[in-house]
Amino acid sequence: MPPIALITDFGTNDTYVGQMKGVILGMNPQAMLVDITHAIGPQDVFQGALALDESFDAFPAGTIHLVVVDPGVGSACRRIAVELGNQRFVGPDNGLVSCIARRYPVKRAHELSKPRFHRAVVAPTFHGRDIFAPVAAAWSVGFDVSEFGPAIIGPLQELVIPTIRRDVAAITGEVISIDRFGNLITNITAGDLPQDQCQFKTEINGRQIVDIKRFYAECEPQELIVLWSSQGRLEVALNGGSAAKELKAEFGTRVQVTW
Amino acid sequence: MPPIALITDFGTNDTYVGQMKGVILGMNPQAMLVDITHAIGPQDVFQGALALDESFDAFPAGTIHLVVVDPGVGSACRRIAVELGNQRFVGPDNGLVSCIARRYPVKRAHELSKPRFHRAVVAPTFHGRDIFAPVAAAWSVGFDVSEFGPAIIGPLQELVIPTIRRDVAAITGEVISIDRFGNLITNITAGDLPQDQCQFKTEINGRQIVDIKRFYAECEPQELIVLWSSQGRLEVALNGGSAAKELKAEFGTRVQVTW
Amino acid sequence: MPPIALITDFGTNDTYVGQMKGVILGMNPQAMLVDITHAIGPQDVFQGALALDESFDAFPAGTIHLVVVDPGVGSACRRIAVELGNQRFVGPDNGLVSCIARRYPVKRAHELSKPRFHRAVVAPTFHGRDIFAPVAAAWSVGFDVSEFGPAIIGPLQELVIPTIRRDVAAITGEVISIDRFGNLITNITAGDLPQDQCQFKTEINGRQIVDIKRFYAECEPQELIVLWSSQGRLEVALNGGSAAKELKAEFGTRVQVTW
Repeated sequence: MPPIALITDFGTNDTYVGQMKGVILGMNPQAMLVDITHAIGPQDVFQGALALDESFDAFPAGTIHLVVVDPGVGSACRRIAVELGNQRFVGPDNGLVSCIARRYPVKRAHELSKPRFHRAVVAPTFHGRDIFAPVAAAWSVGFDVSEFGPAIIGPLQELVIPTIRRDVAAITGEVISIDRFGNLITNITAGDLPQDQCQFKTEINGRQIVDIKRFYAECEPQELIVLWSSQGRLEVALNGGSAAKELKAEFGTRVQVTW
Repeated sequence: MPPIALITDFGTNDTYVGQMKGVILGMNPQAMLVDITHAIGPQDVFQGALALDESFDAFPAGTIHLVVVDPGVGSACRRIAVELGNQRFVGPDNGLVSCIARRYPVKRAHELSKPRFHRAVVAPTFHGRDIFAPVAAAWSVGFDVSEFGPAIIGPLQELVIPTIRRDVAAITGEVISIDRFGNLITNITAGDLPQDQCQFKTEINGRQIVDIKRFYAECEPQELIVLWSSQGRLEVALNGGSAAKELKAEFGTRVQVTW
Repeated sequence: MPPIALITDFGTNDTYVGQMKGVILGMNPQAMLVDITHAIGPQDVFQGALALDESFDAFPAGTIHLVVVDPGVGSACRRIAVELGNQRFVGPDNGLVSCIARRYPVKRAHELSKPRFHRAVVAPTFHGRDIFAPVAAAWSVGFDVSEFGPAIIGPLQELVIPTIRRDVAAITGEVISIDRFGNLITNITAGDLPQDQCQFKTEINGRQIVDIKRFYAECEPQELIVLWSSQGRLEVALNGGSAAKELKAEFGTRVQVTW
């Protein structure tokens, strides 16, 4: 029985996520449900795409990622089921797979147009419960993706993802995520830096941080440090504190690495 | 194995919910536990009753709703197990089933007075862990509700639920719930409006909104919209933003629909 | 299949907890995962140790407590698997078992040094996902603790735990935890008070509260009350409100009981 892993922007205060799970359990009483996060900023598709990209590699083959961040719910926005790598995605076609699809190209994608896999009555404002949840449940008990609707011809919706700028002796990126500890995650990855250099300097909001370290405890308490995140991204942290506060950094803050 | 669905006002920062689950797993190691919400306002029984009402229809037959919002914990407040519709409720008898019992009248109700279904030592401040959790676990493995204590004669405790006022060409209700997106959910349902009319106007905090739409994307970004919620309630939303902020609305704010 | 119960300081907004669960499910697809709390203050080992101590007795024999509050992640801090009572602990050796080990002394403790139980690539900043999660999964499917690495000789790391002061007719302790309701939990337990006395008076931030009651409803609404918490600790509460707000109390606030 593959896990069904949930990412939404529903929060956990309302009953929306619970309702989705109730629907899934009605169709698959043994479902293995896992919450990844429900704290995606309301309707922030890029943040949802990043969360999927971050967590994907930790999940086993067959996992169904049920991802609902859906500003266009009820409108003409296509609803899709996608196989990529050895895992699966169910959600709206609004760019949520854009990040992960760079690493695991789409194998099969089908539109969710067959009403027999939806709830009897579909609320136009809650496709998460009435379309995506029952499709994920059906998929988890063995239906083939082709049964949910016709194959999609042509590309899926793509997000504009912030890109890095490469100069002669510098890479410029930006903060794309800030975690609970105030660690700043950037869009610069290890592969972006020249392998034949080892003296790096990072500049962010007027502060310079020398060197790229391996773990937080490698610097003094309350000192800024640059290291590779557990996802392989350049991360700016403050040992024992919040780099976001210390640097007054936010989403989109520019980060430059020179050598 | 039926799901055990949890609604409490315990929050998720403390260990209370975890302790309840530990007790359940000690009696039913295969329990299917689902969190609906633990963010009910402290001791807000009406909010708990609404959350149960909202999520009930999404859950399969046999589900045990373990609902603990219990201002009177330890006092003479009766503790009950109730069958209604094809689902079940365990919790204090303080009105938590008042909303859902309008749609699914109580079939059987028993008091939880048999100590052999409680934990050996019952903390007077934590019946959730020491009485309700073990009873839910026992129920989930096949005990009959009649084993937990005597049948209850007479009505269960009822809540005063805000009602709507009907005039010749108007219905007046109020905001009873505000979700994470700032959508305002009211106590006006589709059945409350005349079926032979189609020109509706909604007034709230001095603002008028024309028409009742089907989904958020049916209006311009940042425009106010009235539609039916996924629960069939009249809802005031702001496309791409928070209606609660825009309208400075809160619980109890008056909403009037005219035609 | 024993439950795996999680306590971390990762919060639930980021994907860290989800990633740990994905790794566990890759090794044990039937794992029974239970969240105790992920809201431990960032890197607050004492709060993590208290959460473990609070929830331990509610869980069944065999439970694996996966506790990750790890300020020294990546440094020389030892990683351990411990049997105590009839339950189990996996996490860093930084004092997280200090509180519970007073009641259930350590039976066996092993270091997690065998890489074959870790993920193929271990991120120096995320041992929760790459070391602790896979070891917990392996333990849950039947491996013996001795397989994870050598037995530990000598004591585990101990925390300095705030202690009470005993005088002739007084005990002085402090607030060690504040729950969602604003209830103040102290480090004074029932066993600390003389059994031959029954007239107790509690003083905190200049306010005096007479008597130790059994449950919240035993006093008037909005009245301060002292009682034994569901964990057997002296607790100061406000019936229908927050004692923390009323008393401007915080972690470490002094509490004195006299008789």
